This record gives sequence, structure tokens and C-alpha cells, in this order.
Amino acid sequence: MYGIIGKMKATSGKREALAAILLEGLKDMPGCLSYIVAQDPTDLDSLWITEVWDTQDSHRASLALPSVQHAIALGRPLIAGFGERFETTPLGGQGLGK
Amino acid sequence: MYGIIGKMKATSGKREALAAILLEGLKDMPGCLSYIVAQDPTDLDSLWITEVWDTQDSHRASLALPSVQHAIALGRPLIAGFGERFETTPLGGQGLGK
Repeated sequence: MYGIIGKMKATSGKREALAAILLEGLKDMPGCLSYIVAQDPTDLDSLWITEVWDTQDSHRASLALPSVQHAIALGRPLIAGFGERFETTPLGGQGLGK
Repeated sequence: MYGIIGKMKATSGKREALAAILLEGLKDMPGCLSYIVAQDPTDLDSLWITEVWDTQDSHRASLALPSVQHAIALGRPLIAGFGERFETTPLGGQGLGK
């Protein structure tokens, strides 16, 4: 499996709108086993996004999905930057949609 | 919801054994919506653990579960230390077991 843990910084006051775009646009992506959007309670503009995919190829392919392209287009103006980013190799656990 | 993203460092060569203990011991915890154990591909001894709970109280209560106590007892000798740790407020997504 392939995983990503990443911090995304919204433009000021736009975190909620950005989260809504991600949650709405990034559903039902083939090979996506987990995709969680969370607020950083210590930083009003930041989101933590944790993802698990069956393969890295599935993740790469998702970027071409119309729904994802649409979410990226909508979300990009609300993104001020990115913070920590860790790639992982998930082994298992609970909530992997398998 | 309450979330944690944390890095755990195993003693040398014990990452796999530690991951197995976590995966075996930390199942069916009341209020746990997601619990994923992943390898850090850049550090042979490190694991990333991402968790989502319905409440922080559920997470706190889980630490008293016999299965969790057992896993902690088994795992503790194999833990060399902890790395980054971020608490989050999950908003939603896929793979939340709800």
C-alpha cells in the first residue's frame, strides 16, 4: 500500500472552504482506501490530510480524475502553501475500506 | 472527532515485530474510527501511526483496555523512542468506519 501524510495551509480564513472542497471532490477514487481531512488545532489555517492507497499508481491516476481536477481547480486559490509531507508504506489497521 | 499522527521508532531490527503487536492488539477499540500502522520508507526503524477517534475520551479510555495494555506491555521493549506527533481534529473523509 502507499500512504501520504501532509499538511496543507489555507489562505487566511479559507480553511473551512478548502476542507469542504477536498471532502466533496475527493470521494470514490479508485484504489483509495482512506482519505481523511483534519484541522490542525494549533494553526487556524492548516489542514492535515492522511491518505492510503492500494498502490502509488492508483494515487497518481487519481490526479487525472475529472472530480479531482475540479477540486484542484476550485481549491488552488485557497491554498497558501504546504507544510510537512511524509510518504508511508501502510501495513494495515482499521478503516482501510478493504 | 479526535486524531493523532505520530512517529514511533522501534529498536533496531524490531520494526516488523512492533508493527505486528500494534496491529494484533489494537483492534475493535470502542470509538476508534481509523487506526493505521505504516512503515516510514526513509527510516528502517520507524513507523507512522495515524488514528481517528469519535472523541478524545474514547482514545483515553482505550488505554485501559486489556488488549491495549497487553499490546503496550509487549511493545514497550521494542520501542526506542517517538518522533513527530501531531494532534488533529478530523472533519471527515473516507475510511472512518462510521
